[in-house]
Amino acid sequence: MREGVPDTTVAKRALVLLAPGAEEMEVVIVVDILRRGGIEVVLAGVDGLEPVVCSRDVVLVPDVALSAQVETGTSHDLLVLPGGLPGTQVLAGSELVGDLLRRQCANGGLVGAICAAPLALARHGVFAGEPMTSHPSVRQEVGEHGVWTAGRVVEAEGLITSMGPGTAFEFGLALVASLRGTEVAESLRVPMILG
Amino acid sequence: MREGVPDTTVAKRALVLLAPGAEEMEVVIVVDILRRGGIEVVLAGVDGLEPVVCSRDVVLVPDVALSAQVETGTSHDLLVLPGGLPGTQVLAGSELVGDLLRRQCANGGLVGAICAAPLALARHGVFAGEPMTSHPSVRQEVGEHGVWTAGRVVEAEGLITSMGPGTAFEFGLALVASLRGTEVAESLRVPMILG
Repeated sequence: MREGVPDTTVAKRALVLLAPGAEEMEVVIVVDILRRGGIEVVLAGVDGLEPVVCSRDVVLVPDVALSAQVETGTSHDLLVLPGGLPGTQVLAGSELVGDLLRRQCANGGLVGAICAAPLALARHGVFAGEPMTSHPSVRQEVGEHGVWTAGRVVEAEGLITSMGPGTAFEFGLALVASLRGTEVAESLRVPMILG
Repeated sequence: MREGVPDTTVAKRALVLLAPGAEEMEVVIVVDILRRGGIEVVLAGVDGLEPVVCSRDVVLVPDVALSAQVETGTSHDLLVLPGGLPGTQVLAGSELVGDLLRRQCANGGLVGAICAAPLALARHGVFAGEPMTSHPSVRQEVGEHGVWTAGRVVEAEGLITSMGPGTAFEFGLALVASLRGTEVAESLRVPMILG
């Protein structure tokens, strides 16, 4: 497991991947909660800097193109893969995303994947044999790579996975807790009116 | 109360207002759930067609400029005001939004407002004396206009209100139930992994 008490004296950085066809609720809930938690978030367009049409036709503008962000050489404490099946297929088919995932694992950074996105972990060959969850619609394929585990949020060594839009708040809070501690994460509940 | 069984034979139309500083989770969750519920949604930029920077710096592109949408003369079964305090102040200060709200009430259409947005109902003088909820941070001002009512989602004649990002899923489902019936709304829970 990661160290019990995160070092909160240094700003934490997260990179959230934005692909065409991503589930927009998953993207926006995670970015918003991470920023509420004081984490520096970059929303990176996998296909560039153009506005991205998401799964239900909401259009999001990335902060940067992923290729440009990679060229800066910045390391990130957290790499997040939102779901949505079309978006996941883009993430699964991207060599750049595969390189980022392997580098994140090699650096001991944290990876988060929600909904269909654990499929992209399988395609890029990271976290094989680890406990992970996903949207039930891709359970079989995800289970052929990792150990599919029931749970709205499932934590493993360097990996946090979750099931879908309706678990995105819990997923976001688990990511904040991992980077900044449980107290910071729990402090976000009341202002957001989370039950 | 509105008729118990909505007419589901005609496509329902919703207009969601997008103002700078809107709470992006509230905007995106509502648009996404309404579209999952088979409702035609237009996300209209209150300040025009330019990309809109939301409260936690997520950038959303509106489908249309609100002024252009109004010029089409289209009527909408539902008008939604997302929250976020800066966004709400824009909605509260817009004459066009005031006109739309008064017309929606006159036509017997439904209005939805979440988080700080019930403040905009107060500023535009609609639904005075009606039961409504809001984010607790604006409870006093909202209570001077309507009857502030505890509840994650509060339904009144022609008005559905809710409290914040953490209640946005329930709010979206209540809007779908009102326009398309409870069965359609409930059918959205399992695919979204809502508990």
